[in-house]
Amino acid sequence: MFLYSKNFDEQKAKAMKGLRKALEEGKVDEDIISLLEKINSLENYFTTSSCSGRISVMEMPHFGDKLNSVWLGKWHREVAFEEVMEAVRRHRSGQLWFLVRSPILHVGARTMEDAVKLLNLAIGLGFKYSNIKSVSHKKLLVEIRSTERMDVPLGEDGELWVSEEYIERIVDIANEQVRRFKGKLKRLEEEIEKLRN
Amino acid sequence: MFLYSKNFDEQKAKAMKGLRKALEEGKVDEDIISLLEKINSLENYFTTSSCSGRISVMEMPHFGDKLNSVWLGKWHREVAFEEVMEAVRRHRSGQLWFLVRSPILHVGARTMEDAVKLLNLAIGLGFKYSNIKSVSHKKLLVEIRSTERMDVPLGEDGELWVSEEYIERIVDIANEQVRRFKGKLKRLEEEIEKLRN
Repeated sequence: MFLYSKNFDEQKAKAMKGLRKALEEGKVDEDIISLLEKINSLENYFTTSSCSGRISVMEMPHFGDKLNSVWLGKWHREVAFEEVMEAVRRHRSGQLWFLVRSPILHVGARTMEDAVKLLNLAIGLGFKYSNIKSVSHKKLLVEIRSTERMDVPLGEDGELWVSEEYIERIVDIANEQVRRFKGKLKRLEEEIEKLRN
Repeated sequence: MFLYSKNFDEQKAKAMKGLRKALEEGKVDEDIISLLEKINSLENYFTTSSCSGRISVMEMPHFGDKLNSVWLGKWHREVAFEEVMEAVRRHRSGQLWFLVRSPILHVGARTMEDAVKLLNLAIGLGFKYSNIKSVSHKKLLVEIRSTERMDVPLGEDGELWVSEEYIERIVDIANEQVRRFKGKLKRLEEEIEKLRN
């Protein structure tokens, strides 16, 4: 059991249709489009969802309550201190967080052997949190994910708990993390060709 | 390929020997010992490494440089503000971070079917970052992991960037996260029996 995805080609065709629609609507992070295209040009893989990594300022009623959270600012690139401050000034209620998230790519694989090949390539290129996300008779899904992350509480209910100088410092650290994970994405794009049959 | 672990029983015997030694040396987090014992009493699983989750204060030359990082304080439980401050006051050089990490359990499974059963049970109980960590002809490894996490920069090279009031607030948030993941561990211990043959 679970040796290969059933209806892989059908699944891939459906995912590619979804991707074309998302591209037309400008919903795909621009700087990973070429990586996604390279993965999708491989016979035994296709991308389902992906995020190129981001810095954000988020307001949420409680930690982890994504349903009711609001992004006050979100950037898939290095960010300027003043941009972050503009987002922070829009805060009114709930918990205010400064977040960094590493890139995440979900990739369907034809067989378990294909899944493991991709997993090992990604881990070797520094995507150390990569894993096999789900295994079912329907789908084999590899998650490519890196370690960069920040979760910094900034304030609550309109009150700021930290100084502007502090925010300036964490923005520097966040930008360093962005540079690091962008470098990993670039290397992945260079190396992914190795998985061509 | 990859349908089952080769030499599962041999691997399990070796892991159990290692666990007994770690237990004798007091190296296993006390509050997950009974959970580990329950998992290991199942025919098709064994635990390899595990952490019950923790709050810590860490000094590191650069973010992610674990090799040269030093724990100034580490607690596998809720923590008092004053304990955290004692650790913070020991800071001298490098970047100072306040961290929360969710529990992580690594569990060897006999077959891919066993691995997927455990994966789905864990995800259903709130361990949403659970995954299949590695798949090889040698071993099938499930990682059970939850979402709670904090990564907060506190200062650098002996200088503190935040106020004591701020540290008090993030300690509250961290303790809330600890209560949440301890609850998930408890539910896992109650439900794990379902995987008995």
